[in-house]
Amino acid sequence: MADPKILETFPNPQPGRDYLIEHTHHEFTSLCPITGHPDFAEITVQYVADKICVELKSLKLYFHAYRNEGIFFEEVTNKICDDLGALLKPRRMTVISRWMARGGFTSVISAEWRPKKQRRK
Amino acid sequence: MADPKILETFPNPQPGRDYLIEHTHHEFTSLCPITGHPDFAEITVQYVADKICVELKSLKLYFHAYRNEGIFFEEVTNKICDDLGALLKPRRMTVISRWMARGGFTSVISAEWRPKKQRRK
Amino acid sequence: MADPKILETFPNPQPGRDYLIEHTHHEFTSLCPITGHPDFAEITVQYVADKICVELKSLKLYFHAYRNEGIFFEEVTNKICDDLGALLKPRRMTVISRWMARGGFTSVISAEWRPKKQRRK
Amino acid sequence: MADPKILETFPNPQPGRDYLIEHTHHEFTSLCPITGHPDFAEITVQYVADKICVELKSLKLYFHAYRNEGIFFEEVTNKICDDLGALLKPRRMTVISRWMARGGFTSVISAEWRPKKQRRK
Amino acid sequence: MADPKILETFPNPQPGRDYLIEHTHHEFTSLCPITGHPDFAEITVQYVADKICVELKSLKLYFHAYRNEGIFFEEVTNKICDDLGALLKPRRMTVISRWMARGGFTSVISAEWRPKKQRRK
Amino acid sequence: MADPKILETFPNPQPGRDYLIEHTHHEFTSLCPITGHPDFAEITVQYVADKICVELKSLKLYFHAYRNEGIFFEEVTNKICDDLGALLKPRRMTVISRWMARGGFTSVISAEWRPKKQRRK
Amino acid sequence: MADPKILETFPNPQPGRDYLIEHTHHEFTSLCPITGHPDFAEITVQYVADKICVELKSLKLYFHAYRNEGIFFEEVTNKICDDLGALLKPRRMTVISRWMARGGFTSVISAEWRPKKQRRK
Amino acid sequence: MADPKILETFPNPQPGRDYLIEHTHHEFTSLCPITGHPDFAEITVQYVADKICVELKSLKLYFHAYRNEGIFFEEVTNKICDDLGALLKPRRMTVISRWMARGGFTSVISAEWRPKKQRRK
Amino acid sequence: MADPKILETFPNPQPGRDYLIEHTHHEFTSLCPITGHPDFAEITVQYVADKICVELKSLKLYFHAYRNEGIFFEEVTNKICDDLGALLKPRRMTVISRWMARGGFTSVISAEWRPKKQRRK
Amino acid sequence: MADPKILETFPNPQPGRDYLIEHTHHEFTSLCPITGHPDFAEITVQYVADKICVELKSLKLYFHAYRNEGIFFEEVTNKICDDLGALLKPRRMTVISRWMARGGFTSVISAEWRPKKQRRK
Repeated sequence: MADPKILETFPNPQPGRDYLIEHTHHEFTSLCPITGHPDFAEITVQYVADKICVELKSLKLYFHAYRNEGIFFEEVTNKICDDLGALLKPRRMTVISRWMARGGFTSVISAEWRPKKQRRK
Repeated sequence: MADPKILETFPNPQPGRDYLIEHTHHEFTSLCPITGHPDFAEITVQYVADKICVELKSLKLYFHAYRNEGIFFEEVTNKICDDLGALLKPRRMTVISRWMARGGFTSVISAEWRPKKQRRK
Repeated sequence: MADPKILETFPNPQPGRDYLIEHTHHEFTSLCPITGHPDFAEITVQYVADKICVELKSLKLYFHAYRNEGIFFEEVTNKICDDLGALLKPRRMTVISRWMARGGFTSVISAEWRPKKQRRK
Repeated sequence: MADPKILETFPNPQPGRDYLIEHTHHEFTSLCPITGHPDFAEITVQYVADKICVELKSLKLYFHAYRNEGIFFEEVTNKICDDLGALLKPRRMTVISRWMARGGFTSVISAEWRPKKQRRK
Repeated sequence: MADPKILETFPNPQPGRDYLIEHTHHEFTSLCPITGHPDFAEITVQYVADKICVELKSLKLYFHAYRNEGIFFEEVTNKICDDLGALLKPRRMTVISRWMARGGFTSVISAEWRPKKQRRK
Repeated sequence: MADPKILETFPNPQPGRDYLIEHTHHEFTSLCPITGHPDFAEITVQYVADKICVELKSLKLYFHAYRNEGIFFEEVTNKICDDLGALLKPRRMTVISRWMARGGFTSVISAEWRPKKQRRK
Repeated sequence: MADPKILETFPNPQPGRDYLIEHTHHEFTSLCPITGHPDFAEITVQYVADKICVELKSLKLYFHAYRNEGIFFEEVTNKICDDLGALLKPRRMTVISRWMARGGFTSVISAEWRPKKQRRK
Repeated sequence: MADPKILETFPNPQPGRDYLIEHTHHEFTSLCPITGHPDFAEITVQYVADKICVELKSLKLYFHAYRNEGIFFEEVTNKICDDLGALLKPRRMTVISRWMARGGFTSVISAEWRPKKQRRK
Repeated sequence: MADPKILETFPNPQPGRDYLIEHTHHEFTSLCPITGHPDFAEITVQYVADKICVELKSLKLYFHAYRNEGIFFEEVTNKICDDLGALLKPRRMTVISRWMARGGFTSVISAEWRPKKQRRK
Repeated sequence: MADPKILETFPNPQPGRDYLIEHTHHEFTSLCPITGHPDFAEITVQYVADKICVELKSLKLYFHAYRNEGIFFEEVTNKICDDLGALLKPRRMTVISRWMARGGFTSVISAEWRPKKQRRK
């Protein structure tokens, strides 16, 4: 499974301002855990950095690491959200995955990161 | 008539987070109850899961079961909303049907699911 | 002038829910009351039904009845809004007309229906 | 300079309703006051009429009158807003100008009309 | 590094109104500070002027001055925001940079300018 | 039925050159001869003028004259081709009609004008 | 299986001219003969009529008759081509089917009708 | 009337090769010679240079010179073709003008330049 | 390496006609043989079948088999062309691969299959 | 000036077949030799390789080398054509440059490479 230790960071160049960073990866692919067939998605990560930002090349390698993993749409979106949230501890963050046509369906999953104490029990 | 017993579910992988799931079926077809002519629509189901999620392949089969049913736009949209609401008991859910051109018209019907007690009498 | 008596209705199949119905007619045409030249528009009717819904084929015939009428953009939009409001007594309704290029202009008129007592004097 | 006296009006056919009128002129052109080169824009006027509406053909002639005037983007947008506001005394009004590519730039200016007493000193 | 002294201004022609000015430069290019490879972006500056407006040709030259600078996406967006904010002291301002595909990614950075006292410590 | 006598002409300004003239009318409407329902089309006339050209405003009025005529797609396309061919005696001419969605169908009819002797017996 | 006897014809209104007729049905659906799952296509019929033309409403009913038939892409395209060719004996005809995404694939099949003697043995 | 003496040229940098040059002006405007109303077009000049090429800035000024001229679509297209042909004596050249919506019509005129001796008498 | 033995076939249902079959796979992915990074392409196979057709599901599995292979754009396009040509012996066939943005580039490779004797030595 | 020695090659993997290779660079930029302002283009190279192919990364670096060169549209297109032709000696090759809006103009230059003996004297 994609290991969040691949991810690298750099100091937020302007921590005095709440500004929005959005990276969209157009070439995400993983496998269906039931059939083993490939799934394709576009993954968007939007966040307001606190102390650190994610480095783009390491984010690409982290996404590539899902290439041969069998994982559900809902699960992978939440895992990316959890991994990046735990690493960056951003002021706020949203992860959105948009999945290509599969059996006449397209799907979109979007999850918002919140510090643990704010979460629904 | 499409039987909601076709629908299968799986446990919500991240019940601690209110995240949004959206499935759009691009190939819905049913029949006009008056003329018997085919109608075509795109159906979007957006919901925040509570304990369970709907399994995508069973949702496809449930939608296919309308293929030879005569049913009005307004009725089918509300039936899908009722069936999925009763099954999933989601935190919130919206069902939107977008109908192809018919006599120079296109139509969109959108219904939001709410627990019974919250509904208008 | 288009007679609202052409319009037919059917009982709202789900009056317990406030759900949105939207019909867009892509082939509306009337005449300019000054020059007699044809005008072309797309008319959208969005409403939350109360007890009754408008039947789509009769709505088409009602719109066709404007074909040879000379009437201004602002007037026809308000008349459609008044006629459908009086007939359906919807929980809420908006009528939007989008007019094709005329002398380098496109125009959009949108009117919201409200019960009489709520209106501005 | 374009003279607002060109503009003609007609009585609002439905003053009992706050409905929105939007006219977009796709063929606006004026001159750069510095270089004398032509500028091209799309001008949108959105308003809620009070007692009177602007007549569309006279609005076209009023816009044509800028054809050979040297005037800045910011100035012309405010002048149109002032001229139409003074004439129509609308319940509310917005004027938006969208300027074509000039030196690798596109520009959009949008101004909202308010009665004088409400304005910032 | 791009010197904000290149920027020229002119008096706001309508300071009595809070109206929105938006300039989008479609041809921004700088260099990656790590690899030295060129990056390409579209930069949008939206602001409500107070006493002065930025002159468009000088803004173009200011953007051209980044052509051979090595600078990160996050840093350049914040620098443009700081430079224009310090110069124009606008009532409000947002700077948005949209970066072309790089390694399967597109990125968008957006920063809002606020007077120093309002900023997060 | 639309009378070709409405059509006006002017002398070809450059008869020494075989150049192509193409007029597309985006707002053609006629009636279905069986149901009486309106049909909508886009009509393109492409021709190489010989001695005379068709005047655009009269062509518009000629097309408007079909507004309340019941006529088939195939027939109206051929009639326009015959009427304009007989009037203009062009070096060559094509008439194309593109019909909006009707019962899930769109249709395109295209006819080429030729002097009578060249036609198939 | 769809019976070509459903198809109706009318006399070609202009047999003296070789003009092109094209009908595109946007709502074709049949079943996969192996899985029983629905397939969706857009079917285009282009032809030069000889003595007769196909009537559009009967063509729609003929296409509807495939709704619950299990048939391959290649086979249905050739059958439509054979049925219409045998009925219309057109001067020339092409049938094109464009199939929606199925397992990450889209497909297009196009067949040209020729009198039997011209065919490859 | 636009004077071709405004046009400047430079030597063809590669006369040993027949390569294609295409300039499209997106902001052409002239006046209708009958009504005086503005017309808007996109003008494309495609040519294979022989000894000289047209300089782009002078071509812009030449097109600007039509701004207040009353001239027909067919005439202006042929005049541009004649002026540029006489100046450049290209190996071949085509001029295409695409005119914006006027009374529900769009028009395209395209003329090919040929040395005089090749023209139709 | 993808083994053409995965491919299955079925008899051409209409060998008496030269008709065109086109399958486009929108989700092809392989690896760069130098960097190991994933590449993404759309692969189109167009052919006129002789005795047999390729079965679509087996074609999908054959394409999936490239997922973890390092192979150049030019090589994979030619290999697919060779494999399918050798299997189907079609009357004619073209294979086109369209590669997503990589370092600011997109690429298209297209190869036509011919029986060996017809090839250039 | 961009030095063609930067370009690297690899052996054509399928020299027995005339297949088409097309690379499009979306991020070409050079300088106007007169004003020094940046120009932006999309460059397409299409060729049929003979013995060697151009390596994509070196082609990118070769294009980057124009970043600070002042050069005309016509000249740079021909130079790329000459450099790649001399290097690859392809069976055939076309180079197309598409230039972004400059003063209301867009331009396209396309040049075909031929062995010297075939060229026009």
